[in-house]
Amino acid sequence: MKIGFIGLGHMGAPMALNLIKAGHALTVFDLSAEAMQTLADAGATRAATPKAAATGAEWVVTMLPAAAHVRTVLSAEDGVLAGIAKGVTIIDSSTIDPASAKEFGALAAAHGNAFVDAPVSGGTGGAAAGTLTFMVGGSAALYESVKPVLAGMGKNIVHCGETGTGQVAKICNNLVLGVTMAGVAEAMALGEALGIDSKVLGGIMNTSTGRCWSSDTYNPFPGVIETAPSSRGYTGGFGTDLMLKDMGLATDAAKSVHQPAYMGALAQQLYQAMSSRGDGKLDFSAIIKLYRGEKG
Amino acid sequence: MKIGFIGLGHMGAPMALNLIKAGHALTVFDLSAEAMQTLADAGATRAATPKAAATGAEWVVTMLPAAAHVRTVLSAEDGVLAGIAKGVTIIDSSTIDPASAKEFGALAAAHGNAFVDAPVSGGTGGAAAGTLTFMVGGSAALYESVKPVLAGMGKNIVHCGETGTGQVAKICNNLVLGVTMAGVAEAMALGEALGIDSKVLGGIMNTSTGRCWSSDTYNPFPGVIETAPSSRGYTGGFGTDLMLKDMGLATDAAKSVHQPAYMGALAQQLYQAMSSRGDGKLDFSAIIKLYRGEKG
Amino acid sequence: MKIGFIGLGHMGAPMALNLIKAGHALTVFDLSAEAMQTLADAGATRAATPKAAATGAEWVVTMLPAAAHVRTVLSAEDGVLAGIAKGVTIIDSSTIDPASAKEFGALAAAHGNAFVDAPVSGGTGGAAAGTLTFMVGGSAALYESVKPVLAGMGKNIVHCGETGTGQVAKICNNLVLGVTMAGVAEAMALGEALGIDSKVLGGIMNTSTGRCWSSDTYNPFPGVIETAPSSRGYTGGFGTDLMLKDMGLATDAAKSVHQPAYMGALAQQLYQAMSSRGDGKLDFSAIIKLYRGEKG
Amino acid sequence: MKIGFIGLGHMGAPMALNLIKAGHALTVFDLSAEAMQTLADAGATRAATPKAAATGAEWVVTMLPAAAHVRTVLSAEDGVLAGIAKGVTIIDSSTIDPASAKEFGALAAAHGNAFVDAPVSGGTGGAAAGTLTFMVGGSAALYESVKPVLAGMGKNIVHCGETGTGQVAKICNNLVLGVTMAGVAEAMALGEALGIDSKVLGGIMNTSTGRCWSSDTYNPFPGVIETAPSSRGYTGGFGTDLMLKDMGLATDAAKSVHQPAYMGALAQQLYQAMSSRGDGKLDFSAIIKLYRGEKG
Repeated sequence: MKIGFIGLGHMGAPMALNLIKAGHALTVFDLSAEAMQTLADAGATRAATPKAAATGAEWVVTMLPAAAHVRTVLSAEDGVLAGIAKGVTIIDSSTIDPASAKEFGALAAAHGNAFVDAPVSGGTGGAAAGTLTFMVGGSAALYESVKPVLAGMGKNIVHCGETGTGQVAKICNNLVLGVTMAGVAEAMALGEALGIDSKVLGGIMNTSTGRCWSSDTYNPFPGVIETAPSSRGYTGGFGTDLMLKDMGLATDAAKSVHQPAYMGALAQQLYQAMSSRGDGKLDFSAIIKLYRGEKG
Repeated sequence: MKIGFIGLGHMGAPMALNLIKAGHALTVFDLSAEAMQTLADAGATRAATPKAAATGAEWVVTMLPAAAHVRTVLSAEDGVLAGIAKGVTIIDSSTIDPASAKEFGALAAAHGNAFVDAPVSGGTGGAAAGTLTFMVGGSAALYESVKPVLAGMGKNIVHCGETGTGQVAKICNNLVLGVTMAGVAEAMALGEALGIDSKVLGGIMNTSTGRCWSSDTYNPFPGVIETAPSSRGYTGGFGTDLMLKDMGLATDAAKSVHQPAYMGALAQQLYQAMSSRGDGKLDFSAIIKLYRGEKG
Repeated sequence: MKIGFIGLGHMGAPMALNLIKAGHALTVFDLSAEAMQTLADAGATRAATPKAAATGAEWVVTMLPAAAHVRTVLSAEDGVLAGIAKGVTIIDSSTIDPASAKEFGALAAAHGNAFVDAPVSGGTGGAAAGTLTFMVGGSAALYESVKPVLAGMGKNIVHCGETGTGQVAKICNNLVLGVTMAGVAEAMALGEALGIDSKVLGGIMNTSTGRCWSSDTYNPFPGVIETAPSSRGYTGGFGTDLMLKDMGLATDAAKSVHQPAYMGALAQQLYQAMSSRGDGKLDFSAIIKLYRGEKG
Repeated sequence: MKIGFIGLGHMGAPMALNLIKAGHALTVFDLSAEAMQTLADAGATRAATPKAAATGAEWVVTMLPAAAHVRTVLSAEDGVLAGIAKGVTIIDSSTIDPASAKEFGALAAAHGNAFVDAPVSGGTGGAAAGTLTFMVGGSAALYESVKPVLAGMGKNIVHCGETGTGQVAKICNNLVLGVTMAGVAEAMALGEALGIDSKVLGGIMNTSTGRCWSSDTYNPFPGVIETAPSSRGYTGGFGTDLMLKDMGLATDAAKSVHQPAYMGALAQQLYQAMSSRGDGKLDFSAIIKLYRGEKG
């Protein structure tokens, strides 16, 4: 199928490459000439604008940093909506707030196009391996229709409900992730200070009620899980600044529906403290440094 | 073997019954005549005092509400140390602070007795089924020696390190538990307010990075996990007041070693809010009521 | 002087009335016909659009709920910038984020107009009495030039620095206000639970190191300060939802400069909890209800 | 009058010296020979034990670090109660938990003695100058009777209610103090990051609704208040570790009556973070370092 793909960053580039491998014909756009070149080398056609990428496409996929970028890419004079054919579906895999997702859905509908929000989990590793999870917001029929496209980039394609609910699922999951990581960091550092061996503590936690992904797969204490970023200097995982963005989306979403978000708001400030001391590029599990007296 | 068993509450009684089933001869003590009767009916000998329960015993097991009770049971005029033979090991399965456990270890040692802290996880269900996990603090040799006794009451018997580390493991695990439950409650309530189906959200969380025992086994949102207390009116699980006690132990232990415990301290206040509005007897996952606008 | 005044809400209406009393000629605009009528009755000229209100004015004053409204009022086709003469200064007394204030300053400058941010404190009482404090952001020369206009509406006119710093001052002050009120509420409720007379406790606090406006002028415990909203059922003061808006501005501003805002973020959630239970219209000192077990 | 005085630390020594200046005959006890020598040089009689200090005294004053010390000083074999004559009143000026104060009141009563809790505010400066505030818990008659003694050490002697309420007043006041200081530090650092001059911001806060002792007398930002510890390197004020102790008393007292203490618990963790990084001896306003990126 002919796919217009816009946004070739750390996530977008490997996703687009997988679509090519899956046999699709891609026309791509990104502000970075280098990123464009990589995709062109793999067989994609370069477009000069989002409009050009969307022109003639049977599907349009966007993978962008924030809602403001999606808005511009869709609505600008040389944007997607200026080029896309009526009836074509736009798949936005960016992580953005649910309200903006709904707004883009309405915008697309007014233009005669369908729109699904389909944020991902799985990180750059999952993007490269084609094993991402997609959380899809849109009607059941739309969900069925986008599955073949998403199957080229991921393994697990989940229908979350109407437009926006893909973002809701992503945000709520990452809220839990940000909170549990802070909690595990706090407890592992406390255990160390109280004199228990950290591998022993990790082992107990992981077979007991404290069990969680932040402990059994991604434990923030170095050496407990050999494959975790903590065991390689907190490099190469999910950056603190990205977690901070997601915690901001969660507390903003909570504000929008008048829900308190005590734990998330506090965890957000702790990641903020990491960012403000210059540790924003480290994996988010480096939050344990705040508890172990390691300076930024 | 002859075992003196002191403390026949919701946990202690089924633990003692399992020791009898395992073929041990028990002499028991509790302030409740009713609890004593239940054990006597099962074949235990009643003792009039902790001292009497310890006299002639080859092992002494204590299962009490707090450190103050353990102190009294050990040191009072009619206490364990007044009756116990030299060389006999005391196993304390109460959940108490690590410093008190060390103090009791020294107290026993000065008296010619060994002491291990062996708090449990698994709740009243695990106590009845004999499937508790024991977290044992004491020397490697002591750990080996107490294993056959603990095997009569539990399945998983873990060596945590020197005296007090059993309590450290218990406290750190439950700190994570208290924090993750609050985080999951916050996220599930947020998802509901944002319009996603709670079963769908739970399902995504449980196969993604938000995965944790508080979500996949004990989800606080009614109906997500059919076997969780939330699906039966928050009854019959691990009471909010008990979680509050454990969060207090965690933040107090953190204070004792000058560690910040941001997340734990905040979660503690939320459980406190539940307790102060009269919901202390509900399962601790009822904390979600604070987020769903359900009055106490 | 001829003044165009846009925004005749609870604050704007009495401010505009005071400008009339001070002898200025006002042309006013608001979406509410009723608000327009009140001002017309007092001698103001009604304008059909912000553009019309700005046309021919020597000064333009805006008093609007949020940055989005200011943006529209300035930039819309029938907005202020479409009607205002070059060289005329725009005074924005809305409480908005500092970044938007700077943006509006640049927008006005590009159009040949000066802009000052001049948010107020003093509430509806101060607006009516003409005793507001204005926190002015703009050059020293601009500050001097706007003083005669602001003097018609307030008593205390403070120069805070360059454009945007008026909003910074407002936001930082209200951050402290929101935090101290939550702290005083927590302490007064704790004192009550511990058995001290609340007037005695308030008296001690107010002559000791706990002294603060939230305690000595606006104490949240009923009866401690007779003139405080707490002594008249939490009516008629500074609404919880308005405090919530300001706490949101503070934590958002903190996010924008990568500053942690632990205390503000937590207080924000507590006001959020009040709002979500239906108490958003009560004075913000009603936050003490969260601590005294009073249901929403 | 003959006064037995026990506890000659940073607070106790100047308090005892003022009693001598006021014409009282003092018999003193402290574990430090140096502290004893200072008082002896000023005319006090040295006692070998608390019992000896209490023997023959018409009043006994204690000024000790924590409840455990008071308990020992009162109850030990060579303690106050072993030497004191029946009918003599014990004045405890230590800062301790209200429950312990009540316990000591009952202990004294059982022994035929009266007891008042009379914690102080005013710091070492107030102790030296004789301008302390005493918060007195005990019957109205007792309060009247101790006034002449306390008048030798302080200016403001306030009756708080029955035994223990002096401690309640102290704890609640310092809870507010700890929270407001954290809030002011957060806001002053935020203002700095957002580009407002700190003296200007402090000036606005101090004449507006953010006004509080932590801002107008003890502002944590260097240079805003010349006489504050922040303007002399955070030396010589009220140490972070002492504030930490008081925040611990407040949250423990809240726990004892099932009151949530959200703001206090969070502030406590922030002071804890200061202490754990080695800044426990700095004035508690140094908490602003956590916000300004100043390393410990």
